[in-house]
Amino acid sequence: MKHSKLVTKPLTREAFSQFGDVIEIDGSQHYSINEGAVERYHDLANLDIDDGGRAIISFFKINHTKTFPHKFNLMERHPKGSQAFIPMFNAPVVIVVAPKGESFSSSNLQAFATNGKQGFNFKAGVWHMPLISDVKDRLFVVVDRSGPGENCDEVSLENETIELTLA
Amino acid sequence: MKHSKLVTKPLTREAFSQFGDVIEIDGSQHYSINEGAVERYHDLANLDIDDGGRAIISFFKINHTKTFPHKFNLMERHPKGSQAFIPMFNAPVVIVVAPKGESFSSSNLQAFATNGKQGFNFKAGVWHMPLISDVKDRLFVVVDRSGPGENCDEVSLENETIELTLA
Repeated sequence: MKHSKLVTKPLTREAFSQFGDVIEIDGSQHYSINEGAVERYHDLANLDIDDGGRAIISFFKINHTKTFPHKFNLMERHPKGSQAFIPMFNAPVVIVVAPKGESFSSSNLQAFATNGKQGFNFKAGVWHMPLISDVKDRLFVVVDRSGPGENCDEVSLENETIELTLA
Repeated sequence: MKHSKLVTKPLTREAFSQFGDVIEIDGSQHYSINEGAVERYHDLANLDIDDGGRAIISFFKINHTKTFPHKFNLMERHPKGSQAFIPMFNAPVVIVVAPKGESFSSSNLQAFATNGKQGFNFKAGVWHMPLISDVKDRLFVVVDRSGPGENCDEVSLENETIELTLA
């Protein structure tokens, strides 16, 4: 069994651009509406839903607690649509991604930690680790795809475990 | 100048059904994903975006403070798409709506107060009061439409003010 190590780095638009969008107020285009009563931070994620599907809003509720270092070897992808996550809490979230492609390897994984005020939108087909949290019952707003066909592929690394730690 | 009074009632799916969706966990369809690690509360709003537009995610940040009773006479609608609001805070939100149609009158307004854990999705064309809050800098996740054409109509009641109070 091979053991690989992976360490988080801060989530930024630049570092994450090949995987998707960072959904955050800082640095976003914005303008006033309702005669200045409300500021609109506009169009923060590229919702890429295939023609046969439609965008939907869901809540994801965390039903576990994970501690670091976190060991895993399974990733998933949604080939037919993007998937956006917006945390409903003010605490960092750790994500692991790998570029689009038929599979992934431990050599092309990247781990990011949000600053506690960021959401993220995975491009269609981008590999990502299933959602983890150190606190149970946390909520995320999720905007992703509903529609016909299989839209979740899972792949495990064989004879290999990744050990994920916080920077 | 005519003065009309309007009092909030609790936001429920039944009471709100002609105006749109209540986005909440209570009573929603849900199922486990990721081998039970996450519970998915699935497809909570009917995102109705016209063919020329696309669904987008934005943040709205409150840039005012309102107190009750709140006086207003202006409502708005978005004829080309639904508009979903999910508060990023745990406190009631007060909304006022009127049915779809060319205009509205003080006689067909209804006011609702959320329970602090609810979002709401206005159907395309439903009249609603601009967003109000008693606390500045509060954030909402908004999923609505981007696309060509005018998609915000505003109408004021002439010689009439509505006085909105909490139940």
